[in-house]
Amino acid sequence: MEAIHQDPARSQTSDSPQYDIADFVRVRDLTTDLAHSLSDADATAQSMPDASPAKWHLAHTSWFFEQFIVLPALGETALFDPSFGFLFNSYYDTVGERHARNKRGLLTRPSLETVLAYRQHVDARMLDLLRRPGTVDLSLLALGLSHEQQHQELLLTDILHLFAQNPLLPSFTDSASLPDASLPGAAATWASFEGGIVTIGHDTSDFCFDCELPPHEVIVRPFHLANRCVTNGEWRAFMEDDGYQNPALWLADGFAHAQQAGWTAPLYWRLRDTEWWTMSLRGSEPIRDQAPVSHVSYYEADAFARWAGARLPTEQEWECAARRVPVRGNFLSLDCLAPRDQRAGQDCRPAGMFGDVWEWTSSPFTPYPGFKVAEGAVGEYNGKFMSGQMVLRGGSCVTPAGHIRPSYRNFFAPDKRWQFSGLRLAKDL
Amino acid sequence: MEAIHQDPARSQTSDSPQYDIADFVRVRDLTTDLAHSLSDADATAQSMPDASPAKWHLAHTSWFFEQFIVLPALGETALFDPSFGFLFNSYYDTVGERHARNKRGLLTRPSLETVLAYRQHVDARMLDLLRRPGTVDLSLLALGLSHEQQHQELLLTDILHLFAQNPLLPSFTDSASLPDASLPGAAATWASFEGGIVTIGHDTSDFCFDCELPPHEVIVRPFHLANRCVTNGEWRAFMEDDGYQNPALWLADGFAHAQQAGWTAPLYWRLRDTEWWTMSLRGSEPIRDQAPVSHVSYYEADAFARWAGARLPTEQEWECAARRVPVRGNFLSLDCLAPRDQRAGQDCRPAGMFGDVWEWTSSPFTPYPGFKVAEGAVGEYNGKFMSGQMVLRGGSCVTPAGHIRPSYRNFFAPDKRWQFSGLRLAKDL
Amino acid sequence: MEAIHQDPARSQTSDSPQYDIADFVRVRDLTTDLAHSLSDADATAQSMPDASPAKWHLAHTSWFFEQFIVLPALGETALFDPSFGFLFNSYYDTVGERHARNKRGLLTRPSLETVLAYRQHVDARMLDLLRRPGTVDLSLLALGLSHEQQHQELLLTDILHLFAQNPLLPSFTDSASLPDASLPGAAATWASFEGGIVTIGHDTSDFCFDCELPPHEVIVRPFHLANRCVTNGEWRAFMEDDGYQNPALWLADGFAHAQQAGWTAPLYWRLRDTEWWTMSLRGSEPIRDQAPVSHVSYYEADAFARWAGARLPTEQEWECAARRVPVRGNFLSLDCLAPRDQRAGQDCRPAGMFGDVWEWTSSPFTPYPGFKVAEGAVGEYNGKFMSGQMVLRGGSCVTPAGHIRPSYRNFFAPDKRWQFSGLRLAKDL
Amino acid sequence: MEAIHQDPARSQTSDSPQYDIADFVRVRDLTTDLAHSLSDADATAQSMPDASPAKWHLAHTSWFFEQFIVLPALGETALFDPSFGFLFNSYYDTVGERHARNKRGLLTRPSLETVLAYRQHVDARMLDLLRRPGTVDLSLLALGLSHEQQHQELLLTDILHLFAQNPLLPSFTDSASLPDASLPGAAATWASFEGGIVTIGHDTSDFCFDCELPPHEVIVRPFHLANRCVTNGEWRAFMEDDGYQNPALWLADGFAHAQQAGWTAPLYWRLRDTEWWTMSLRGSEPIRDQAPVSHVSYYEADAFARWAGARLPTEQEWECAARRVPVRGNFLSLDCLAPRDQRAGQDCRPAGMFGDVWEWTSSPFTPYPGFKVAEGAVGEYNGKFMSGQMVLRGGSCVTPAGHIRPSYRNFFAPDKRWQFSGLRLAKDL
Repeated sequence: MEAIHQDPARSQTSDSPQYDIADFVRVRDLTTDLAHSLSDADATAQSMPDASPAKWHLAHTSWFFEQFIVLPALGETALFDPSFGFLFNSYYDTVGERHARNKRGLLTRPSLETVLAYRQHVDARMLDLLRRPGTVDLSLLALGLSHEQQHQELLLTDILHLFAQNPLLPSFTDSASLPDASLPGAAATWASFEGGIVTIGHDTSDFCFDCELPPHEVIVRPFHLANRCVTNGEWRAFMEDDGYQNPALWLADGFAHAQQAGWTAPLYWRLRDTEWWTMSLRGSEPIRDQAPVSHVSYYEADAFARWAGARLPTEQEWECAARRVPVRGNFLSLDCLAPRDQRAGQDCRPAGMFGDVWEWTSSPFTPYPGFKVAEGAVGEYNGKFMSGQMVLRGGSCVTPAGHIRPSYRNFFAPDKRWQFSGLRLAKDL
Repeated sequence: MEAIHQDPARSQTSDSPQYDIADFVRVRDLTTDLAHSLSDADATAQSMPDASPAKWHLAHTSWFFEQFIVLPALGETALFDPSFGFLFNSYYDTVGERHARNKRGLLTRPSLETVLAYRQHVDARMLDLLRRPGTVDLSLLALGLSHEQQHQELLLTDILHLFAQNPLLPSFTDSASLPDASLPGAAATWASFEGGIVTIGHDTSDFCFDCELPPHEVIVRPFHLANRCVTNGEWRAFMEDDGYQNPALWLADGFAHAQQAGWTAPLYWRLRDTEWWTMSLRGSEPIRDQAPVSHVSYYEADAFARWAGARLPTEQEWECAARRVPVRGNFLSLDCLAPRDQRAGQDCRPAGMFGDVWEWTSSPFTPYPGFKVAEGAVGEYNGKFMSGQMVLRGGSCVTPAGHIRPSYRNFFAPDKRWQFSGLRLAKDL
Repeated sequence: MEAIHQDPARSQTSDSPQYDIADFVRVRDLTTDLAHSLSDADATAQSMPDASPAKWHLAHTSWFFEQFIVLPALGETALFDPSFGFLFNSYYDTVGERHARNKRGLLTRPSLETVLAYRQHVDARMLDLLRRPGTVDLSLLALGLSHEQQHQELLLTDILHLFAQNPLLPSFTDSASLPDASLPGAAATWASFEGGIVTIGHDTSDFCFDCELPPHEVIVRPFHLANRCVTNGEWRAFMEDDGYQNPALWLADGFAHAQQAGWTAPLYWRLRDTEWWTMSLRGSEPIRDQAPVSHVSYYEADAFARWAGARLPTEQEWECAARRVPVRGNFLSLDCLAPRDQRAGQDCRPAGMFGDVWEWTSSPFTPYPGFKVAEGAVGEYNGKFMSGQMVLRGGSCVTPAGHIRPSYRNFFAPDKRWQFSGLRLAKDL
Repeated sequence: MEAIHQDPARSQTSDSPQYDIADFVRVRDLTTDLAHSLSDADATAQSMPDASPAKWHLAHTSWFFEQFIVLPALGETALFDPSFGFLFNSYYDTVGERHARNKRGLLTRPSLETVLAYRQHVDARMLDLLRRPGTVDLSLLALGLSHEQQHQELLLTDILHLFAQNPLLPSFTDSASLPDASLPGAAATWASFEGGIVTIGHDTSDFCFDCELPPHEVIVRPFHLANRCVTNGEWRAFMEDDGYQNPALWLADGFAHAQQAGWTAPLYWRLRDTEWWTMSLRGSEPIRDQAPVSHVSYYEADAFARWAGARLPTEQEWECAARRVPVRGNFLSLDCLAPRDQRAGQDCRPAGMFGDVWEWTSSPFTPYPGFKVAEGAVGEYNGKFMSGQMVLRGGSCVTPAGHIRPSYRNFFAPDKRWQFSGLRLAKDL
């Protein structure tokens, strides 16, 4: 049911697409660049059914352009390899049959080298088309690039998961160190919002995914929102207070799942002697107490909030607050590839709402009133994942800059932990 | 995760409890009466983990009064059997350990006879206490009786499931036949609602469960609601149009589940030669085309609605419409024990909103804004089932009369089919 | 794959059947008598797929006579109920379809009372036929009665398993107490056997099951055999020496199974404070150190033997020794319903080879050289269980007297523990 | 439980080891050579828990020499990488903890290049030691090389399984084509053997695995053995006669397994339009009717034999016949990498007993009388796989020449199909 995260093409055209040929080059190059340190084997392995191989991400995003733009414009002769449709389609039933999702890691052929050649092949044809004005549906271009940006994030979260299964704990990157963790972290304070009738959803002419539409009014009651995310230090206090063992704090299915899975800490945390370490894209490193907790499930986030005498915000509350702050933060472009230490906002204003970690909300992922599914294969299944998933907001340290906005809705099942997912507390006023 | 349906004590006190000693006698006697045709073996078997034995329902509802009213008032000496707490507690962690839910069917002892004696024992002590004014917390009484009414419905749905597993297809009841099915059914029409800012939730001083609180305002957009439920005849048209085989109609997880489970028709439907039959509390009987379809999951209801070019209503839309019609319908008290043929409402007004079948809504079961969990063991877990479940409204043919109200929220996971669950279509205006 | 133990009709005719009408009455009455203390619910529940309800045993054994003797002789009109073939056939494909094995516990109807009436109905017709000389194939009679005796044992082992799942730990029987456990137990000694070319298999004209045929010669090397079974006291020494935790003692699949299942003691053992108790047909009782250990799997028996510096005997070794001792022991007729304390044999001769507990051998259950499957439905599947199972020998405290012989081969998968299964050690000379 | 096939070091020393430094070079080089066409990704992927990555085979066989010969002789400083013990130990508990077997495919690091460097590192140290007479225990050398030969076969069967999962159906090899399939195949005839008291097991001073010891006498009854293996053409006749659908032909657990797994043909067979194709190390190719059927499980082989009115031979019968024919056949050295068409033996003598396909016998893999486990880690678990597996004899087209002998016992669980496993029929005389 996480298929969507293999192919998040849940998008919608809008009136004035803002993507051009330079964007195309920039986005496509970034994807290839992200994979540059990976070996053929690294790029092939699939560590769990939820994750996909890097090679698959590289190929699937190319297939998307080939299938929906190149092929209609240039015909079958432009195909790089006719078998790739079967291999790299994610879930578009109208496009045809496809390789089993949980066997993607067995595709040792085509090689990484061939997949990179596939990318170049598609890029060359796309550039040709883009240079001929009016040839490419610019809303499809916007969709294809936004789609590819989502896979950039997934490529990184999936590689982290793979490397975390390897006892050698390899590093994906050697990029510069994070800010010093020895600075004292400010205690969280509460920002107040008065609510009322507010507009939710995307309401400009810029690109957005269809699930952000239509904009609509909702009644939001007055609420408090923490001015920063919950930190690792706070999470350890929860653990030390037997938070994982106390059923009174948990949703019933969450507790059952946590017990069955043996959860006692966030994903990737390991106790070495008396110190907690985590696995990151930089390899294994000690927990930093002031950094936001990451790689927790909705179930854990919800339990923590109850333990803290608070709750998670609804997605409407979150969006209401997010509309007041600039879309800036620790995104992929900063090349940290890990959440940075939290600084509380000044004057009690929420800080860090964008970047670092996705923030779980208490809202199930459901259609907005008046939601419409797009026509054709591109929009074939826009709404079909609106079941059993919870909304996250704000992007993370591996979200491409420029990809996110206040109305952006990410979503995962409540037991998933391999994304950079954390939380921010809320309260009734 | 369906534990709640074994013990739906998700209640809340209110200012003027309307239950008295006569209600106590009436409700308690009805439960015992429902089981009168069951053998010791019938009352012991558990046909699946979601269901409970009739004996367990009989005992657990008694344990509830013993644990929360008799024991605090009279002390340990009033206990019928000290081992019963372990056997018949459903999920109250603060009350103590309990027997594994999926092994309830192995409790061949205590016998049905002993469980009935247990009921009498508890009733005698309860009546003593009820005759002493001020002794019993009347809000706990209201809760205990509402709780018992929920188990009355579950006892019947669970027995139906059990009998449907038996190749002999035994009847639970021989009650009088349903109205003649030969009358032509009216085509459904659409009732229009203008929406606006409406109040949702329970807003009188009568008893309600806590999840119906607090009442609050929401914005509802104009909508259409069908004036009757979807019928078996309409469902067959969906089946004949390959509705179960077409992934484009389904939520992704719904289709995966349906394929894996091999669904091709509602639960209990069997094809005999060329005719569809179903299993009911009256035994095996032919499908009646004008009766509302029942025993379909949320996934199926959602797919049907998409096939029909419509959608399911939200629970707010449903409640908005239900507030305008009287709470009357085919409840348990009519002793039909099956949905009756649908008659479309006159003047395009929705008919049959109460009774016959629970109606799936498109709303996940989440807390209302400002929802508060009650104090103590009774309210220990009031909100802990607010995850992974969808709201149903309106009651069914096995819901006790007087138990239901416009604000009443029932909830089940989207794959469950053994309740009397059907659907009514909605549309944007 | 344990279906056979639901219906062990793996038999073969022989030249001079020794069963007559008196045997028929005696065996049939005993089965009914065994069930006399069971309630309808007790007789209906199925505690696991390997076990069957008592009601099913009562009906299936009757169905066997009805299907294979009454029906051919008297025709369809003699049938008690035409639906019973579907319900109570165990695995005879040529006879027709049948109810799913793991759903036998859901057959709350027919009632125990009806099943007992079924028994009387079949018995009446059988007695009529038996009184007419030459009407009944006496080899089928012998098979049907031997088959029924096997189900007598299974009825008891299955009821024990059911009652052991009940937190009330009910007793099946109140029969007289066992011999005093305070007597000191003799240390085991080794009996020597010189082996050579020996005959294995049933070699008289009495009835036997087909898997005991044909008699054949094998070469047996000289060996030692313990003069008594391994006791509970010895088993506790194994446990205290971390026998369950040490992979070096175990077969690889056995250790994996034990770990996964969480085995730390024989089935039914529970630690109460510091004392080990077990569940028996007499209810819960303390472990008696001198009694043979029971309810251990082949995997455990094999690990124990390795720990003890010995091994399990082959079935040929066991039979070789058993041919020299009388077929006497603690069988069902003694009404102990539990293994008795072990006394070592005198003069180093093996004692207790019959009764008390079945003894695991190291021999997989395979066909003897020249083994032939019988013709027709009765013998339809005589050999189809010869896969993945190990041979046990000697009978147990719930085996009907007269049912066992030196050549008798019982068999279960190596992970099964709910039979009265223990072990006796062997060694190379 | 198939761990053994990842590391079949079930060996035993003998008096005159016949392996020397040239053998070491030859065997080690062959392994590396087998992997030369594999990419890093090919060598990393694990297609199922039963199979291991090629990289793992390359490393594990090296670890074996490092752990048991180099390390004792040269100490810790000779270690290539201290983490490799954890990664490449298969199941030696006394040597320490190890990486989870079913996660071997996630070890994208170390790379294939590093693993090949590891091989060279170990080889250099081994050659140094081998050049110093008396330094290396030659029985350990024999064991290490025989062990490596087993992994050579496994490397090929595991790669075939991996490539068969890839929709591109890549070829492992382009080696020369097989003999023309158009020659008519001779009908099988029966060779007669008179049996008697025969010696079974390895009875020379050459190297053998411990499970082939000790040699011992058994009584074998007169029997017939087919003079060739069952062919694909014969297997198709079985399929066309509904062999896979007829429970009367099957062992009970075999039929249940076949139904659950959806078996309708040997592993790798696919119907293309009306023609059967199979996947081989040469890629996808049509079934050749005269070639021996391969990639069938014991369950299927047993069912086929029953269908054919015959049975599988016991391992004693097979060995009895094999002692009379030369150890020649289609082994790995012929570089066919697939079974060749069957020619019936002349004068009714069995042909093709060695090479082509392993032949299932009806014998469970159990210890020979007097079997002894070797001392120390090398022999730590020699017998621990003697449970739940059936013996195969004769080697296959991917068995290294010189590795096999008449007494050689291979073994797999009865449901396994990914080895080159076929069958030869037998009959009582």
